[in-house]
Order: sequence, then C-alpha cells, then structure tokens
Amino acid sequence: MYSPLIDELIDALRCLPGVGPKSAQRMALQLLERDRKGAARLVQALNEAVEHVGRCQLCRTLTESEYCEICANPRRDNQQLCVVETPADLFAIEQSNTYRGRYFVLLGHLSPIDGIGPEAIGVDQLMNRLVEENVSELILATNLTVEGETTAHYISERARQLNVIVSRIAHGVPMGGELEYVDGGTLAHAFSSRKQL
Amino acid sequence: MYSPLIDELIDALRCLPGVGPKSAQRMALQLLERDRKGAARLVQALNEAVEHVGRCQLCRTLTESEYCEICANPRRDNQQLCVVETPADLFAIEQSNTYRGRYFVLLGHLSPIDGIGPEAIGVDQLMNRLVEENVSELILATNLTVEGETTAHYISERARQLNVIVSRIAHGVPMGGELEYVDGGTLAHAFSSRKQL
Repeated sequence: MYSPLIDELIDALRCLPGVGPKSAQRMALQLLERDRKGAARLVQALNEAVEHVGRCQLCRTLTESEYCEICANPRRDNQQLCVVETPADLFAIEQSNTYRGRYFVLLGHLSPIDGIGPEAIGVDQLMNRLVEENVSELILATNLTVEGETTAHYISERARQLNVIVSRIAHGVPMGGELEYVDGGTLAHAFSSRKQL
Repeated sequence: MYSPLIDELIDALRCLPGVGPKSAQRMALQLLERDRKGAARLVQALNEAVEHVGRCQLCRTLTESEYCEICANPRRDNQQLCVVETPADLFAIEQSNTYRGRYFVLLGHLSPIDGIGPEAIGVDQLMNRLVEENVSELILATNLTVEGETTAHYISERARQLNVIVSRIAHGVPMGGELEYVDGGTLAHAFSSRKQL
C-alpha cells in the first residue's frame, strides 16, 4: 500500500528484535515524516559499527579495538576470570559494580542441536588463558537455562583438569522478590542451595 | 561501558519511536552479534528512503514518485476527497477496503501552540483541489482529539464557502466493543450522535 521504498524500509526494520509489522511501520513513517536527521545518524552509526566492530582478541566481547577496555585495563584483577554468554551479560555485571576481575565472553552456549560445540564458543581459547594468565578462580556466570547449565558443567570439567578453582554464581530468590510471586524452578533452586547459618 | 562505536549505535537507535535504552542495547548487540546482513540491508533501505521519498504532488502522502499510487490511479472516484492527518491513517482506511475516493494528507494538525497554522498543513492546496477537481463531498477523517477536531472545524468552515458538502466520519462505540469497557468520552459521543431508527 505504501510506495516500494517505504515498504522495503518497513521490511528491513523488522530485522530488529521485538519489532513487528505495526512498529516497523510506525518507525519508518516517523523517520520519514519527522526525523530524517535521526535516520541519517542511524545510517552512519550502523555503517561504522558493522564495518569496525569485531571481537576483543582476549575476551571475545564486541569492540572496535584489538583489546576491549576491560582487557586493556591494567588495574583489573588477573586472578579471577568470569565466563558469561553475551556482551550484554558482561555489561550487566559491570553495572552492578561488584566484580573487579576479567571476563571471557562465549558469545553463545553449547547447543549440539544447533551444531554449536566447544570450538564455536572458544573453550580452547579460554583454557589457554587459564594456563597462560595463571588464573586462580574461574567464575561461571552462564544463564540458568538447560544450555547455560550444560555449558557451565562442560567448562568446569575442563578447568578442573587444570587445577583451577571453579565456582558458579548463586541462583535463588532475587532481592526484593516476594516468595508468593517467585516461580517454582527458582524456589526449588533456592531450597536445594540453602546455606546453613 | 561498551566501546564508543557500539555506544553511538545504541544512542542512534533511540531515535526510533518506542525504543528506550534497554531495547536499543538489545537491538545493537543483536545486529552486531548475529545479523550484520540485516544491518546492511537496513542501512541500504534507510539511505534509499531518506534520499528518494518525498511528498505526493497532489495528496501530500509520502512517496518516491511524483504522484502516489492512489492519485495516479484513474479508477479512483474524483467526486470524494477524504482528509486524514497522516500516511498511516490513509493506510488504515485503505486496509478497510471501504472507500474508493481520493485523499488529502495534512501531515499534522492545526496546533497554534507549536506554530502549526493552516499553511503548514496545506489547507490552501486542499481548497484549490476542491475547486479544480470539482469535488462534491469532502470527508473529514482527522482524529477525535482537540487538535483533530479543531482542524476539522477549520477546514469545514473554509470548504463551506466553496459550496462543497462536508462530512465527518462517525465516532462512537467500536464494533465488538462492550459498553462496560468503553471510555466515558466515547460513550458521551455515542449518545450525542445517536441516530433515530
């Protein structure tokens, strides 16, 4: 119903996560009617990012430099290495201001059904770092999903052969969470991981 | 926390309507981690649309041609002209398959507080069309908001001086709407616009 170029823009916007036909239409019209400057800026930013952003040589997070800010920071603790699935997970941990060690980003999780094995998530690279950097503790912060747990289990087995202490972040009832509204899986986890006082 | 190019991309994505910091972050990472092809296609579509899409010479809707598909279609009824605020409104009416006449898109509504007067929404151009095309009925389909009503009122006054029949689309309880859940303003409108059977 719209002209071909507008239809193509609406279609192209749907590659964005969480954007369906209605919001894509709204976005396209908003950009064309009222914000062509914003659209030009978006084109520029997308071009630059797609062209230059690659992976950090050390931790595999997304960055346009050879090493990301955290890997390049000499004041981060070399003794601890935290494994996360995605750059967004790394960001969330950094935001909490709770951890001063270094990271390793898997960029995914083990998923044999999709053909994602240990090489795809860089487990060998991770093991090399454990040895080369003399890491004393490996903290597994993969998600509490079937795939995340499998990945954590696999990595912990591999790391234990190198005599590295392996830990897993705690899972349970979140802060401010009311038991009444917490799901059964989380509650089960909170009970089985209970600590003696 | 992300690298500068990623931060800039996240920022640029926020020009899209309904996209806050969290979704912008999710979009940027999704594009960079998993869908660079989609990002390239989006760049291409944005570029083409921003460069080529302008306004239809006749009805002011967005199109890359001189005249939009509807204005260029000789089989549309010249006798009726429907006034809408935006291209999305035009699209919604076309989707309903109920109207075979032509359109005029205001691309906005009268809003003296924002400095939007009759020239900005092309009222003179609209009046010229009424005369030149010998339109017999002008259908006002602006929104049922203060600005939309003001705009409809202003246009109807102007059109009446040209001896054109002016009508306004009906407002009331929507189809399938249950009275219990319809807002008071709509109910009041439905009562005051009641028809004798």
